[in-house]
Amino acid sequence: MRHLPHLLLASLLALPVCAAEAPRTMGELLAASAATDWREIDPANTLQLELDSGVVLIELAPAFAPRHVANIKALARSGWYDGLDIVRVQDNFVAQWGDPESTRPIQSGVRTLPAEFTVPVDPTAPFTRLPDVDGYAPITGFASGLPAARDAPSKHTWLTHCYGMLGVGRDNAADSGGGSELYVVIGHAPRQLDRNTTVVGRVVSGIERLSALPRGTGAMGFYAEGEPRVPIRRLRVVSDLAPADRIRLEALRTDTPLFQELVELRRNRRDEWYLAPAGHIDLCSVPLPVRLSR
Amino acid sequence: MRHLPHLLLASLLALPVCAAEAPRTMGELLAASAATDWREIDPANTLQLELDSGVVLIELAPAFAPRHVANIKALARSGWYDGLDIVRVQDNFVAQWGDPESTRPIQSGVRTLPAEFTVPVDPTAPFTRLPDVDGYAPITGFASGLPAARDAPSKHTWLTHCYGMLGVGRDNAADSGGGSELYVVIGHAPRQLDRNTTVVGRVVSGIERLSALPRGTGAMGFYAEGEPRVPIRRLRVVSDLAPADRIRLEALRTDTPLFQELVELRRNRRDEWYLAPAGHIDLCSVPLPVRLSR
Repeated sequence: MRHLPHLLLASLLALPVCAAEAPRTMGELLAASAATDWREIDPANTLQLELDSGVVLIELAPAFAPRHVANIKALARSGWYDGLDIVRVQDNFVAQWGDPESTRPIQSGVRTLPAEFTVPVDPTAPFTRLPDVDGYAPITGFASGLPAARDAPSKHTWLTHCYGMLGVGRDNAADSGGGSELYVVIGHAPRQLDRNTTVVGRVVSGIERLSALPRGTGAMGFYAEGEPRVPIRRLRVVSDLAPADRIRLEALRTDTPLFQELVELRRNRRDEWYLAPAGHIDLCSVPLPVRLSR
Repeated sequence: MRHLPHLLLASLLALPVCAAEAPRTMGELLAASAATDWREIDPANTLQLELDSGVVLIELAPAFAPRHVANIKALARSGWYDGLDIVRVQDNFVAQWGDPESTRPIQSGVRTLPAEFTVPVDPTAPFTRLPDVDGYAPITGFASGLPAARDAPSKHTWLTHCYGMLGVGRDNAADSGGGSELYVVIGHAPRQLDRNTTVVGRVVSGIERLSALPRGTGAMGFYAEGEPRVPIRRLRVVSDLAPADRIRLEALRTDTPLFQELVELRRNRRDEWYLAPAGHIDLCSVPLPVRLSR
């Protein structure tokens, strides 16, 4: 706008109604959204992580990691995670919970699975491509409401390590994870992990109950002997809770014109405060709004 | 390495001494560093932010924001920040402190200054360019040990909003900030702020005392009425402290062959755990190691 010729500016000023109606901020855009711009977050694919501080809700991504999602749900349904601890909080990286020493027996589910680092592209599933370059992948965008990448339009796709994403911890072997160790990204997107772990979902509510935890002082942010533990009261699949106990959420759909408008509003911020719009947005800076169901 | 022809691989295996000596991880690389790979962090350009939880050390960047750095040091030296609060902690964004209502009179220093969003490139100052594409700027790399960008080799340069960077809060006008409000990035790099605020430095120790603070529940993460405040006991320039009270730090130089080796080790991780090296690193994922002075 700063270099618009005066005549063009004048002609814009002659259209006060249109100018006033175009949303300038994400808040204005969302206020103008329709019910159809939103989708219910499926309670059968949502985990409720219950901590002393409150609840963290995590949407699972069966389209990207079907076997791991099924296994994590089986573990959750058997109460396997209950009473374990958050064992690692590494600043600007991850918060992690589970059974690092593999000491807790597993009845329902399994401890390890073949990796699901990538999956074949489903040509019938919507993919909203970002217009900008990404250094880590040839193609990036959004699928199933989540940040994702592709190596070619029709080959492989994977979820990317943006803030709040849930991944499966593993040892050195690709097939050494299965869900008994889980981590959430709480810092700058560690995209170097993409295609190195199975990513299974995203925190949709309560991330601050993980990101504001005290950092561990042990190696790699593990809590050292004597540091306070953060117990997991319960980890449940939301659809298993009594209906009255469920928090029902909606996420903004990522396969709509409104979402593309949101991306553009964030590529070139029009909030009054911004003096130099970036003309670019990186994958992990695109907001993925969530609200209570209406 | 995965696609190396067998013959080449065999010839590499014939050089076991070199192969064994090449560092595979950042830890190994730093263990092999020389004293000259490090630089002392100048106590005359380091702030010590003293909270109830301990100390946060911040290296200032006079090369990028000389007037703001001088003003912030003048404010600190007069004790102006002492007894103010951290007023805002927004998840995945910033922790901010200062005098948001501009109620505290200023004797030494000033409240507002002309913006220092960018500065002319100093052709005599080293700049270590990153090899990879960056969506937000034509050229990125490291200057004065800090992440920076340029619009052309010889024109303007600016510090980028990576994790831990310290910026100057402002109102809508470019010249409405001066250092009475300061923020530190505690989440995914908000690069859309680049060239929109004056960036004055980087936290070099104790970031977890900011990043793990309770999030504010007010608009934009400001602490709401009744939420616990996080008081600033003192903010001092380290060179003004008694020598025995100073924490002396060194930062890895960014203008050395060793630093370029570090960048390459992080572009293509050779730790055993990594199965698919990224072949890329984004500016804000490059570690900038700091250690106690030796």
